[in-house]
Amino acid sequence: MDTITTTNPPALVPTDRTRVRRLPARASYERATIDAILDEGLVCHVGFTVDGQPYVIPTVYARVGDELYIHGSAASRMLRTLENGIPVCLTVTLLDGLVLARSAFHHSVNYRSVVVLGTAVPVEDEADKRAALEAIVEHVVPGRTSSVRRPAAKEVRATSVLRLPLVEASAKVRSGPPLDDEDDYGLDCWAGEVPLRMTALAPLADPRLPPTISPPPSVVGYRRPAARGG
Amino acid sequence: MDTITTTNPPALVPTDRTRVRRLPARASYERATIDAILDEGLVCHVGFTVDGQPYVIPTVYARVGDELYIHGSAASRMLRTLENGIPVCLTVTLLDGLVLARSAFHHSVNYRSVVVLGTAVPVEDEADKRAALEAIVEHVVPGRTSSVRRPAAKEVRATSVLRLPLVEASAKVRSGPPLDDEDDYGLDCWAGEVPLRMTALAPLADPRLPPTISPPPSVVGYRRPAARGG
Repeated sequence: MDTITTTNPPALVPTDRTRVRRLPARASYERATIDAILDEGLVCHVGFTVDGQPYVIPTVYARVGDELYIHGSAASRMLRTLENGIPVCLTVTLLDGLVLARSAFHHSVNYRSVVVLGTAVPVEDEADKRAALEAIVEHVVPGRTSSVRRPAAKEVRATSVLRLPLVEASAKVRSGPPLDDEDDYGLDCWAGEVPLRMTALAPLADPRLPPTISPPPSVVGYRRPAARGG
Repeated sequence: MDTITTTNPPALVPTDRTRVRRLPARASYERATIDAILDEGLVCHVGFTVDGQPYVIPTVYARVGDELYIHGSAASRMLRTLENGIPVCLTVTLLDGLVLARSAFHHSVNYRSVVVLGTAVPVEDEADKRAALEAIVEHVVPGRTSSVRRPAAKEVRATSVLRLPLVEASAKVRSGPPLDDEDDYGLDCWAGEVPLRMTALAPLADPRLPPTISPPPSVVGYRRPAARGG
């Protein structure tokens, strides 16, 4: 019996569809790596196919254990084609830096990305939908749910939620300096990394907010990766 | 005769596939809006379908006039399926802020995104490939090309480049404060926006770089949107 399975899931088994072929040294199938990327990202890009045409739509999401949830209303075109589920690809990309090599050819970017394949199905049960919607708000701003008006029943009905199992997935990570051809290291050319960060600026109060209401710590100290429960 | 067409392209005509149905007030088909988003973004997400399964892969890109170019090698799975072109969706998303409403239901994000649909075809001509690869480097770091070793012929051959016409596309933009239900404005709950910015940190020199080589202005002052020719 492996008693730590719940908190520390085993590595996923790569399938023919998720095995990283290009630069496989950058690949990982470890849940710890995959989960950390999914939990740090804010927006995913969901791909689906309608009449042979792929569509890629940005939307917020949340991971809850071994499931991913997305807001169906953000992908209404997808939902119109949804009956018993639809094949999707959910990709999360964190851009960490620009990699400037001495040759044009070896320029690159440092990044962490996760690709999840599978069939997204609608969440029908109201309690399950509520839990998923709450998870999405908490994913974006941990601690937010407790201070806002919870959804009314008609708001829950008006929102579609899709569930995607986190089973067929892979991560890909590049970090570090450029890797130039040995002959190029002597060139008189600056090389290195320009690190990029997604940072939060000071919060902007709604113009209709009474000046007596101050932003809570979850807003003032906002950062990614988020401090859970902050 | 419209003599300014080249520098100021007309609005695109929405098709049944690109007309924004959900929250159409956020949509734009103006090339100025679309081009500004495409030119500010660093990474796009390209969607394509293989055996009924959609895939979404992040990759760098460049816009050159009415064409988009992507680095084929970043989407090798796509290229294996490519013969006379493949239907793709190229999406660029700029995340501008988190929109915190007084109700969970009206939480949102401020963003600018572009969705381009079409058929990506391989660029075969060596001069055209060189121009596209140079455009991709210049898109990421304007002015970089002149200071690096240009691609050798074998490097050009080893790199696949795809071209996608910028014809069937739409932009979608949300900005500003939350829009709450009128009844909720009296709630004792902070509401507003947490602005997000992608910022560059100080450049990190390659450990093998001689200390006599200083980073050029294009690197030290790096920012998006990039100063063209900087």
